[in-house]
Amino acid sequence: MTDYTLHYWPIPFRGHFARAALAHAGADWAEAGTEATAEAMDKPVSEQAVPHMAPPLLIDHRRDSAVAQMPAIMAYLGAALDLMPGDPARDALALKAVLDGNDVLDEITRDGGRQMWDAASWEAFEPRLSRWMAIFEETGNRHGLTAKAGWMLGTGAASLADLAAWALWSPMTRKLPPLRGMLEREAPATAGLVARLEDTPPLARLRERSDAAWGESYCGGQIERSLRAVLGQVQR
Amino acid sequence: MTDYTLHYWPIPFRGHFARAALAHAGADWAEAGTEATAEAMDKPVSEQAVPHMAPPLLIDHRRDSAVAQMPAIMAYLGAALDLMPGDPARDALALKAVLDGNDVLDEITRDGGRQMWDAASWEAFEPRLSRWMAIFEETGNRHGLTAKAGWMLGTGAASLADLAAWALWSPMTRKLPPLRGMLEREAPATAGLVARLEDTPPLARLRERSDAAWGESYCGGQIERSLRAVLGQVQR
Repeated sequence: MTDYTLHYWPIPFRGHFARAALAHAGADWAEAGTEATAEAMDKPVSEQAVPHMAPPLLIDHRRDSAVAQMPAIMAYLGAALDLMPGDPARDALALKAVLDGNDVLDEITRDGGRQMWDAASWEAFEPRLSRWMAIFEETGNRHGLTAKAGWMLGTGAASLADLAAWALWSPMTRKLPPLRGMLEREAPATAGLVARLEDTPPLARLRERSDAAWGESYCGGQIERSLRAVLGQVQR
Repeated sequence: MTDYTLHYWPIPFRGHFARAALAHAGADWAEAGTEATAEAMDKPVSEQAVPHMAPPLLIDHRRDSAVAQMPAIMAYLGAALDLMPGDPARDALALKAVLDGNDVLDEITRDGGRQMWDAASWEAFEPRLSRWMAIFEETGNRHGLTAKAGWMLGTGAASLADLAAWALWSPMTRKLPPLRGMLEREAPATAGLVARLEDTPPLARLRERSDAAWGESYCGGQIERSLRAVLGQVQR
C-alpha cells in the first residue's frame, strides 16, 4: 500500500497542488481515480473519511488521517514533507501563495463554470489576471527571486510557495499557451521559477505522467471549452 | 500603537474570522477602516504591505510582518495566539474548518454577488447549505462535541476550528434569523457550540461593538438585499 491516496478528478487543476508537493518530496501516493473520488464525495457525511463537500481529499495511510480542502492539504503536506519556510511570517506567506493560487483557479473557471467566458468578460478579466501574476512576482522579488535563480520566499530550497507557483502557472500556461507569453511578460521571475521547477526530475515525471493520462485537459467541462474559445485555442 | 491592524470592510463577514481569533485570545488590534482598507487594496503591488488582491489584510506591528488571505491570516494567528490543536491531523482539520467557512461565505454571496439570489436559486442552494452545516456537525460529533459541551476537534479549549464555526454561523444566523432555525435543526451540536462561544466575554464584547458600529449589515451590497429578499427579511 502507498503512503497517501489522493482523491481528485483526472485533470491537473486543483489536484496538481497536492501532486506537486507529493512528487517534489518523493512521497509515495496513489490516485484514487474518478469513480472513487465521486463516490467519496457523494457519501453521507457520516460515512466520509473526513466530512467534505468536494475533492481534493487526501488520505494519509500511515497516520490513518484524512483531510480535504486543497490549502489545508497543502498545509498538512507542508508540515509532513518539510516544505514550510520555518518562520511564522514566511510560513503564512507560503500558505497565502497557495490561497492566491486557489483563488486564481476559481476566477479562471468563473467559480467552477457558473458562467461561461465570452470576449467581453475575458477582456474585463485580463487586467485582474495580470494583477495576480504581479502579486506572485512582487512576492518573489521581495525575497530575491530572479528569472534565473532563487525561490519565492528566499528559502534555501523550494517551499510550499514555489510548488504552489508551479502548480498554478505551469499547467495553465502549458495547456493554454496564449497565457505563457502573458506570464513571461508580467512576471518574468515567476516564469523563470516555474521553468526551473519544471525541469526537476520529480516535476518533469509528474508532467509526463499527467500528460499521458489526461492529455490536454486543464480544468475540464464546458468552462474549458469556453476558455479555449476566448483564447483562440482548439480543444484536441 | 496596537499589536495588530486589521484591514477589512465595516461588516462581519470574512473579517470576523480574524476578529474572533484576536478577540478570543485577548489580542490588541485596531480596525484600519474602510478608507485605509480600500487604499491598501488599490495600491500598486510594489507599494502594498504584502502584495494582495483584496482584504482582509493583517499587519503584525511587533513582528513587522503582514499577511493577506483570510485562511492564511487564521493560520498565522493560530500559531501566534496558540489556537492550534497541536497535532498534525487536527491542525489540518482546524484549517479545513476555516476553509469550509470561507467557501460557505463565497456560496452564500454567490461569489461576491456575481449573480443575485431569487427564489429558485435559493431553493436549489438550501440542500447545499444543509450539507455544509452537516459537515461542521459531523466533524464536531466525531470529536465528542454535543449541544451542551465540548469543542469541534476534541481539544481542551476553543481552537481555530471553534472560532471559525462561531465566525461563520454566528453573524449569519443573527443577521439573517431565518437561518438560525435551520442551523439548530441541521447541526444542533454546532449551534450549541456557537451559542456557548457567543456568551464568552470576549466574543460578547466583539458582537456588541460590531453591532454598534455596523448595525444589521451582514455581507453588504446588493447581494445582501437579494439574500434578505429570498429569506423574507427587510433590511433595516
